[in-house]
Amino acid sequence: MSSDHSESGIDPDGFTHLDAQGRALMVDVSGKQETVRVAVARGRVSIASEVARLLSSGEMPKGDVLAAARIAGVMAAKRTSDLIPLCHPIMLTSVKVTLEVMSGAVEIEATAKTCGQTGVEMEALTAVSVSALTVYDMCKALDRSMRIGDIRLVQKSGGRSGDFTGS
Amino acid sequence: MSSDHSESGIDPDGFTHLDAQGRALMVDVSGKQETVRVAVARGRVSIASEVARLLSSGEMPKGDVLAAARIAGVMAAKRTSDLIPLCHPIMLTSVKVTLEVMSGAVEIEATAKTCGQTGVEMEALTAVSVSALTVYDMCKALDRSMRIGDIRLVQKSGGRSGDFTGS
Amino acid sequence: MSSDHSESGIDPDGFTHLDAQGRALMVDVSGKQETVRVAVARGRVSIASEVARLLSSGEMPKGDVLAAARIAGVMAAKRTSDLIPLCHPIMLTSVKVTLEVMSGAVEIEATAKTCGQTGVEMEALTAVSVSALTVYDMCKALDRSMRIGDIRLVQKSGGRSGDFTGS
Amino acid sequence: MSSDHSESGIDPDGFTHLDAQGRALMVDVSGKQETVRVAVARGRVSIASEVARLLSSGEMPKGDVLAAARIAGVMAAKRTSDLIPLCHPIMLTSVKVTLEVMSGAVEIEATAKTCGQTGVEMEALTAVSVSALTVYDMCKALDRSMRIGDIRLVQKSGGRSGDFTGS
Amino acid sequence: MSSDHSESGIDPDGFTHLDAQGRALMVDVSGKQETVRVAVARGRVSIASEVARLLSSGEMPKGDVLAAARIAGVMAAKRTSDLIPLCHPIMLTSVKVTLEVMSGAVEIEATAKTCGQTGVEMEALTAVSVSALTVYDMCKALDRSMRIGDIRLVQKSGGRSGDFTGS
Amino acid sequence: MSSDHSESGIDPDGFTHLDAQGRALMVDVSGKQETVRVAVARGRVSIASEVARLLSSGEMPKGDVLAAARIAGVMAAKRTSDLIPLCHPIMLTSVKVTLEVMSGAVEIEATAKTCGQTGVEMEALTAVSVSALTVYDMCKALDRSMRIGDIRLVQKSGGRSGDFTGS
Repeated sequence: MSSDHSESGIDPDGFTHLDAQGRALMVDVSGKQETVRVAVARGRVSIASEVARLLSSGEMPKGDVLAAARIAGVMAAKRTSDLIPLCHPIMLTSVKVTLEVMSGAVEIEATAKTCGQTGVEMEALTAVSVSALTVYDMCKALDRSMRIGDIRLVQKSGGRSGDFTGS
Repeated sequence: MSSDHSESGIDPDGFTHLDAQGRALMVDVSGKQETVRVAVARGRVSIASEVARLLSSGEMPKGDVLAAARIAGVMAAKRTSDLIPLCHPIMLTSVKVTLEVMSGAVEIEATAKTCGQTGVEMEALTAVSVSALTVYDMCKALDRSMRIGDIRLVQKSGGRSGDFTGS
Repeated sequence: MSSDHSESGIDPDGFTHLDAQGRALMVDVSGKQETVRVAVARGRVSIASEVARLLSSGEMPKGDVLAAARIAGVMAAKRTSDLIPLCHPIMLTSVKVTLEVMSGAVEIEATAKTCGQTGVEMEALTAVSVSALTVYDMCKALDRSMRIGDIRLVQKSGGRSGDFTGS
Repeated sequence: MSSDHSESGIDPDGFTHLDAQGRALMVDVSGKQETVRVAVARGRVSIASEVARLLSSGEMPKGDVLAAARIAGVMAAKRTSDLIPLCHPIMLTSVKVTLEVMSGAVEIEATAKTCGQTGVEMEALTAVSVSALTVYDMCKALDRSMRIGDIRLVQKSGGRSGDFTGS
Repeated sequence: MSSDHSESGIDPDGFTHLDAQGRALMVDVSGKQETVRVAVARGRVSIASEVARLLSSGEMPKGDVLAAARIAGVMAAKRTSDLIPLCHPIMLTSVKVTLEVMSGAVEIEATAKTCGQTGVEMEALTAVSVSALTVYDMCKALDRSMRIGDIRLVQKSGGRSGDFTGS
Repeated sequence: MSSDHSESGIDPDGFTHLDAQGRALMVDVSGKQETVRVAVARGRVSIASEVARLLSSGEMPKGDVLAAARIAGVMAAKRTSDLIPLCHPIMLTSVKVTLEVMSGAVEIEATAKTCGQTGVEMEALTAVSVSALTVYDMCKALDRSMRIGDIRLVQKSGGRSGDFTGS
C-alpha cells in the first residue's frame, strides 16, 4: 500500500481513531500542547423560496425559528463529545452560530473556540448540523423537500497540524 | 398573504412550532392517534477516493469506522428530542443505520420506526447526521476536504399527513 | 403519630417516594390508568426595572433572551426525569412556556401535557425553574440582585388525585 | 438610552450573551484568566409545618428525602452548561449542597467552586433549584401548596468583576 | 454450523442485535405486545470488612453512601437506553434499588418494571452496576482492593420469551 | 473507634465524599496539582462457551458485538461524572477499551488518562462496566445465564496517593 501513500499523500495508517487492528479508540492527546484553537464550519438548508420568504418577512417575523436554531446549535456544540464516540471532551470558551435566510436556503455558520489540547472542528460541524436539523424540524410542516447540505469546515487555526482555510 | 398561499400551496400559518406571535412551543399531539410510523432518511459524506478505498479495503478492514458510525447514528436517534428543541420524546421501536462506501463517498441511510403520536423523520435525519459526523471525525486526519451533504427524507409512512416518497 | 394525621390531614406515611424504612424508590405506577394529564406552573424572576425595560423595549428587542428562556424551559421539561431522581420518564405530548416582562420582574408560566400514568407537575415546575435560570444567566452582567421565586403549581388535571387549582 | 445608563448604572449594551443585533451567543472567555472562583446560592421550599416536622423527626427519619435532594443538587450543578443554553462548560472542583429543615420551610444552600475562566454562580443557582424541585417532588403527595422561592446568589469571589456578597 | 445448534441449543443466528452481515441494529419490536414486564438483578461489591463495619455502624451512620448508591442506581436505570447502544427507550413504571451491608460485601438488588414491548433486564442490570460503582467511588479512599462482581439477572417475567428465575 | 483504625489501617473519617455528619458532598480538589493520571480497570462477562465461540469465529465475525462494546465503553467513560453522583467532571485525554474473547468469557480492559486534579479510576471502571453490559445486551437472546464480574482496578498512577498495582 505504500504506493498509494506516495501518490495520493494519504497514509493508510492515518486513521488516528483506530489501533493497528482497526479497533476504535480515543486517541491520546495528553502530550499535546494547550493552545487557542478556533474552527469555523458552514452548511445550508435548502428550502422552498416561499418558506424562506416567510422566515425573513418583516411583517410577521418568525423570530423563534432562527433563535431556536441558534440556541440548538450552541447547545449541541457543548455535547459534541457525548454524540461523536471518539471525540474528546473539550471546555469550549466560545460558540457562535449565525443563520442567514437567502432565497431558497438558510445558510448557517458556526464558530467554536477553546484553549485546549485538541481541535474544535467537530464542535463547529456539530453546531451547524443540529442547527440545520432544527430549521428543518420547524419548517417541515410547510416544506417536505428540504435538504441539508454542504456541511464543511471553512477555517481552522491553532494546533500542530497548522492552519486551514476551505471555502 | 392569502395570495401567497393560494399560489404556492404554502400556508404562512403553517409553522406548527410557533404560536400566533411567532414564539416557539412544542405542538400539542395529545389528540393524535397512535399508529406505526416509519421514516427513512439518507445523506452522504464526500471523501477522497483514496480514503474511501481504505475504508472498504479487504486487506485491512477499518471495520470500526463504519461500526462506530452505525452505532453513533442509532444512539443519536434515541436522543433526537434532547437535541432538537421542539421535538417530542418518542419511544423508538426500531432504528437501523447502514453505510455503504462508494468511490468518493460514504452513503448513509437510516430507518426509524415507532408506534406513536408523532412522526419519526427527525429521528431518521438525526441518525444520518450524527453518523456522517462520526465518519468525518474518524477520517479527518486523512482528508480535510470532506463534505456532509444531501441529507433528506426519502420515505415516510403513518400519520395523518399521508405517505411521502422522496428521492 | 395518628393524632398528627387526624388533626393536620397529613399522613406521615404519605411520602410515596420512600419505603417503610425511609429509603428512596421510584413508586410503582404500573397499575395506574393512562389519562390526559395537564399541569400549569408559574414563577418569577425579580429584576431591576431598568433591565426589565431593556428586555421589553421596542427599540432594540432583546428577543433572544426571551426566546432562549422559552426554549431552555421546553428542553428542561423533557429532561425532568433525568434531573429529579425519582421522577418517572414521561412522553410529553405538549409543552409551552411563556414569559411576560413586567415592571421589575419577568413572569414565567409553563404548561405540560401528557397522556400517561403519572402527573406532569414536575415537568411544568422544571420548565419554569430552568427558564428562570436562563433569564438570570442572560441578565446577570447587568443586575446582580435578581431573585427567582414564587415557583408553584397553579393548575393540575387528570389522574386519580383529582383536579387542583392554586393561585 | 444613554440617560438611562447614567442614572441607573445599567448599560443597555451589557447583555453579554447577545450580539449587537440581540442574537444569542456564548460569550468568548478565551482571554480571561484562570482563577479560583467560588459562588454560594440559597433558596427555600415553603412547606406545611406538619411535613417539615416529619422531615426532621427523629422517630422516623426521612433521611432519603434530604439525601436525594443533596445528591440531585450536586448532579445538577455538573449539568448546568447542558441546561442553560449559553453557560460555558466548567470543570467544577467542588460542590456542596446543604438542606436545613425549619418550621414551615426547607432552606437550601449550595457552594460551587472551580479554577477556571468563568464564574460558577449559575452552577450554584442550578444546584439550589434542582435540589428544591427534588424536595418538592418527594413531598408533593403530602402537600400541594409548596412554593419554591428566594433563589439568589449570596456570595461570589474570584474573577474580574470583583467579589460580591448578597443576603 | 447447524450441528453446533443442535448440540448446544444455541442458535448462531440468535444475535438479535446483528443483521445477516453482523452489523449492529436496534431490533424491531413494533409488533410485540405491550405487557407488564419485571426484571430483578443482583450484584455485589466486595469490600474490606472494616469498611463494611463502618458503613453499617449505628454510631456514625454513613447514610449518604447507601442513599447515594440507591439514587444513582435508580437514575442510571432511567438512562439505560442512553448508555447501551442498542437498548430501546423504555418508560419505566417503577425502579427499586436496595443495598445490604454484609460482612465483607455490599449486596445490591434492583427491580425494574414497565408496561411495554421489550424487557427490562438491562435496566435492572444497569441500576445494579451504577449503584455498585457509586459504592466503590465513595469507599475508594478507604479500600483500594474492592471488586464489583456477580452481576446477574435473577428473575424476569412478562414478554414472549417466558419467565426466568436465576440465582 | 481509634482502635479499629490502628489495627486495620482504615480511617473511619476517610470517607472523603461525606462531611462530618455523614452527608454527601463532592470533595474539594481545587488545591490539588494537575498531573498526568492513568488508571487501568478490568472485568469479565462469563458466557456460554458456544456463544464465545460464535463471537470469535472467523467464519462469520460478529464484529459489531465487540465494536459496540468498545464504543459504549469509551462513551460511558466520558459520562462518568454524569452517572456517579460525586465524581468530578474530568477532561479525559485518552480512553481505550479492549475486549478479548476467551473460552467461556469475554475479558474487558479499559485504560483512562487525563491531565488533571483527580484520578480516573472511576472512568476506567465505568468503561468496563458499560462495555460489559453491552456485551450482555447483545448476547442475551442466546444466553440467559451470563454474569458480569471481577470488575476491579488493576493499575493507577499519578496523583498524591501514589501508584497502585492490583491483579
